[in-house]
Amino acid sequence: MNDIKEITDALIKFRNERDWEQFHNPKDLSLGISIEAGELLEQFLWKDSPNANTEKVKEELADVLAYAFLLAEKYDFDVKKIVLEKIRKNSEKYPVDKAKGTAKKYNEL
Amino acid sequence: MNDIKEITDALIKFRNERDWEQFHNPKDLSLGISIEAGELLEQFLWKDSPNANTEKVKEELADVLAYAFLLAEKYDFDVKKIVLEKIRKNSEKYPVDKAKGTAKKYNEL
Amino acid sequence: MNDIKEITDALIKFRNERDWEQFHNPKDLSLGISIEAGELLEQFLWKDSPNANTEKVKEELADVLAYAFLLAEKYDFDVKKIVLEKIRKNSEKYPVDKAKGTAKKYNEL
Amino acid sequence: MNDIKEITDALIKFRNERDWEQFHNPKDLSLGISIEAGELLEQFLWKDSPNANTEKVKEELADVLAYAFLLAEKYDFDVKKIVLEKIRKNSEKYPVDKAKGTAKKYNEL
Repeated sequence: MNDIKEITDALIKFRNERDWEQFHNPKDLSLGISIEAGELLEQFLWKDSPNANTEKVKEELADVLAYAFLLAEKYDFDVKKIVLEKIRKNSEKYPVDKAKGTAKKYNEL
Repeated sequence: MNDIKEITDALIKFRNERDWEQFHNPKDLSLGISIEAGELLEQFLWKDSPNANTEKVKEELADVLAYAFLLAEKYDFDVKKIVLEKIRKNSEKYPVDKAKGTAKKYNEL
Repeated sequence: MNDIKEITDALIKFRNERDWEQFHNPKDLSLGISIEAGELLEQFLWKDSPNANTEKVKEELADVLAYAFLLAEKYDFDVKKIVLEKIRKNSEKYPVDKAKGTAKKYNEL
Repeated sequence: MNDIKEITDALIKFRNERDWEQFHNPKDLSLGISIEAGELLEQFLWKDSPNANTEKVKEELADVLAYAFLLAEKYDFDVKKIVLEKIRKNSEKYPVDKAKGTAKKYNEL
């Protein structure tokens, strides 16, 4: 069994044992991702990257990933497929010869 | 090769071809996650879940996941391990007998 | 003295008494806004608007506003002027005859 | 008339001309704040504060403020009162003698 399937199964088991599927609609799962992304961001507030607490970053990132996997499952998205597809699209928006070494957005290249 | 390793390798290849590693410090990757989480959230603004555009949700969720995998790689976190560990911790914060069927936060159970 | 000036003065006084201006660069103040916006959002997670806790909404909204006023002050923006200017711009993007009664984004009108 | 009342009146007028009150429930207004906070944050992605585009920061901050004022209005909160009250509470959480010159969170002081 692949990793993402294994993680998703564990998340679904945790959710179902608590009868939480009733709350997990896509809109609220997206709120969950944003909220946890904010808690992750808080680990870097007023400081540079090296001063963030690695353990806390780990926990908040895990929360972001958990809701992201649950949202993917809700839509029956294949996580590997949608990320690889996005990379392919971004390869067109950010061609190597124009994007190399610059942090500009594609519409400013 | 497992899925997450395969996705991460593709992200790193895309990044390195563009010489973008110089920009990808943990703080800015966390900004990236929050920004993309906001774009995901926008798909649900002023509407209920069923009225969101599935294609757009897919693309924005892929962006959230891409930055999340890149941040995990930056810290050398094992995605499967950190999410399963978080589920274990949450199992203690949300014991089934107290948390079943309620959306309350652990400190209100 | 107008309200916004009075609020901003109180925020600056609070900040300076703690010698916090050194941390309050525009980037980190923007992180602050996003983080507090996430805490505000959390008040609505898994629930409809009427079930949110008004006291907590009040506190989190106050935090968002505090950082927003501090960021405006940092750039010497006139809050009234920039919001009224944005309304004027949005009036062009969302002309009444096209936008009335629909939640569509301007590029879909 | 004070500034905040004047801004809020202009926002309500803009909203009502478009018959948008039906969409502006507190939960979705909070989504709006988070989404715009993400767009503000994007102005600082991969860069330090001085390299952000001031005009764009101004526009995104105006959007955050607009939704924040609309949410305050929805709850009939007095913006000045709730921010001053929050400063008072924070003065207790962050006493000058402990908080001076440090960016630590109150629970770590």
